Amino acid sequence: MNFKIEKKLKNELGRAGVLATLHGVVKTPAFVTVGTKASVKALTPEQIKNLGAQIILANAYHLYLQPGDKLVKKAGGLRKFMNWSGPTMTDSGGFQVFSLGAAFGDSVTKIAQKTTLRGPTSKSFRDNSGRLMKIDEDGVNFCSHLDGSKHRFTPEKSIEIQHNLGADIIFAFDECTSPNADYEYQKEALERTHRWARRCLAHHHHLEAKLPSGEKQALFGIVQGGRFEDLRKKSARIISKMDFDGFGIGGSFDKKDMYSTVGWVNQILPEEKPRHLLGIGEPEDLFGGIQNGVDLFDCVVPTRIARNGTLYTRSGRINILNSKFKTDFSPLDENCGCYACQNYSRAYLSHLFRAKEMLAGTLASIHNLYFIVNLVAEIRQSILAGKFFQFKKEFLDRYKQ
Amino acid sequence: MNFKIEKKLKNELGRAGVLATLHGVVKTPAFVTVGTKASVKALTPEQIKNLGAQIILANAYHLYLQPGDKLVKKAGGLRKFMNWSGPTMTDSGGFQVFSLGAAFGDSVTKIAQKTTLRGPTSKSFRDNSGRLMKIDEDGVNFCSHLDGSKHRFTPEKSIEIQHNLGADIIFAFDECTSPNADYEYQKEALERTHRWARRCLAHHHHLEAKLPSGEKQALFGIVQGGRFEDLRKKSARIISKMDFDGFGIGGSFDKKDMYSTVGWVNQILPEEKPRHLLGIGEPEDLFGGIQNGVDLFDCVVPTRIARNGTLYTRSGRINILNSKFKTDFSPLDENCGCYACQNYSRAYLSHLFRAKEMLAGTLASIHNLYFIVNLVAEIRQSILAGKFFQFKKEFLDRYKQ
Repeated sequence: MNFKIEKKLKNELGRAGVLATLHGVVKTPAFVTVGTKASVKALTPEQIKNLGAQIILANAYHLYLQPGDKLVKKAGGLRKFMNWSGPTMTDSGGFQVFSLGAAFGDSVTKIAQKTTLRGPTSKSFRDNSGRLMKIDEDGVNFCSHLDGSKHRFTPEKSIEIQHNLGADIIFAFDECTSPNADYEYQKEALERTHRWARRCLAHHHHLEAKLPSGEKQALFGIVQGGRFEDLRKKSARIISKMDFDGFGIGGSFDKKDMYSTVGWVNQILPEEKPRHLLGIGEPEDLFGGIQNGVDLFDCVVPTRIARNGTLYTRSGRINILNSKFKTDFSPLDENCGCYACQNYSRAYLSHLFRAKEMLAGTLASIHNLYFIVNLVAEIRQSILAGKFFQFKKEFLDRYKQ
Repeated sequence: MNFKIEKKLKNELGRAGVLATLHGVVKTPAFVTVGTKASVKALTPEQIKNLGAQIILANAYHLYLQPGDKLVKKAGGLRKFMNWSGPTMTDSGGFQVFSLGAAFGDSVTKIAQKTTLRGPTSKSFRDNSGRLMKIDEDGVNFCSHLDGSKHRFTPEKSIEIQHNLGADIIFAFDECTSPNADYEYQKEALERTHRWARRCLAHHHHLEAKLPSGEKQALFGIVQGGRFEDLRKKSARIISKMDFDGFGIGGSFDKKDMYSTVGWVNQILPEEKPRHLLGIGEPEDLFGGIQNGVDLFDCVVPTRIARNGTLYTRSGRINILNSKFKTDFSPLDENCGCYACQNYSRAYLSHLFRAKEMLAGTLASIHNLYFIVNLVAEIRQSILAGKFFQFKKEFLDRYKQ
């Protein structure tokens, strides 16, 4: 993997670059399309590529449980299994496992929400505090959100799973804390995350030694520390000194964190390595994150809201189920060049959603992903053209969050 | 519309031909892809075209209720509304309306099955016999299966709806009887269907007179008569004398009807006009129907079973949820050239179904439609090559129903 910065924002951390992986180039900043279970929901790889997506992120926790990372390896790895010819990443499973525990009940994740609804799981497999996982120094025991079966992840196990999946970029196994956790817990968890980071690196190098050079994976370390400035900076210092190929910034964020938390971290992380802000992807946040030195984003929001009929437009979100769209024969967004906007009306999409046709989710997902992927591409262009702040102002003046 | 027969089977009714519509040519025999609510479930028009489909059938009953035929007209008609550039047909709604009544409780249709499940509808809107429609000489009153609202279809109303939808080929409004109805009822219903056929033709000509020649629609009359030979023959004689552009053969059928009922009718229908066997599309039936002079078929079965994981192969149906397919890295069907078989394994499709990913339904639908559409295309080729019976034997010897 090779990362090259093409242009920097003056007096800011932001930059435009090119990330070369074994399976293709990613022009950064870039929005990474999420295909949690080795499928970007409702879309074929051709549709994903045609909307401008450069890279897909799958998830180690989900694929370990179903269909199993060893099966994906047998199939020739994630790319071959899902028929995606470009670059791939996998998340370590840290966020998912911990959303069954520390973050449980805070409703920060889909998994936590889903688990709440599952009768058998909630009765049989929770610990005394109602959580579905238990952490120790060596790793974490947890119950599957699918069937309540018991499992154990360690840093080594997560790396092994991610080697089996075979993505171009993989992540260290970290502890993602609840945004409501206190300073003492954040500090304790952070130190564990740093110890686990070293173990991930060691195990990665151990497994990598057996691989031909054409199959080497890049490993990103993850910076944690919640909303505490001293912890975030400490984490950035410690993780940046380890031999990672790039970095993830983990945790729960709100709008202002793009300027505070993300900035604290990226001032410390080495400039020459790529940075991925995990789980972020709303338009306002993208501008903030990029201005503060983020190169890669991923987020399930664009496709999740699409399946409920919520669509991005340059003037803000619309819900296509609003009755006024029933007779609106204009495109979803007049300024959009996506397949859905080029070929279908708001009236047709409104009909598909009301008639519960599967094509509704497909067209809406194409539109929302196109919107976000190409917004990040436009931001990139604005950096290269020296017009980032002008573009940011123009866009945000018009866009109602 | 123009229909030309290219080659006939020796001593049989079967033939291969070309049906030229205003929006493209259909090589017959052909399988018509069903897009009931102006969408072929889970597929884009490009995916439909790429799998070899030539023509799409939508439904007057469903589109009248949602989003409304007038809205579709405002959108520029069915083709423009749904972004399908090729030929289209609409069914008259006769089958759907009657499945709320005469056929109700016989579970012959999806609507009847669905309605059974709907609480408010079943409580408030059924007549004393539990049916959702009431027939009279002039037309039929019925309750929507969506919200129980009351509606009335007459032959004129069905034609008006189908003119608003604007398909290349439309059907007369008929009474589709239950396969369990007795001779007396079949006779009575048949005579009504014939009177309605005349009214459909008259209203079609009345509306057509106002249209430019580039927008003329073809109207097909429908032959009914259940399983009674004298009624079927009588219906074929009467309907064939009317000024229809082609014919539909309606009713409920089983395997042997392809050789009895369909043969009785097609011996009488004028050879030079196209014939559509309504609602039929299983491999065995296609051979029987084509041998007995059918040019067009439509059926929801290929896509409906696809969404449940049942796939056609040359040796019969398989269900991809069978656990043996979890680790099967071969294509869905080794002999298949479809997009799904060219790019994905049984193991991946098995995973998608188990993970409840929307792409599962899309890939399975592409495969099943490709299988059926191209089977009919191969049968056509076998007629042209003088090898129909050889191909039929080879295929059916291998295919386990």
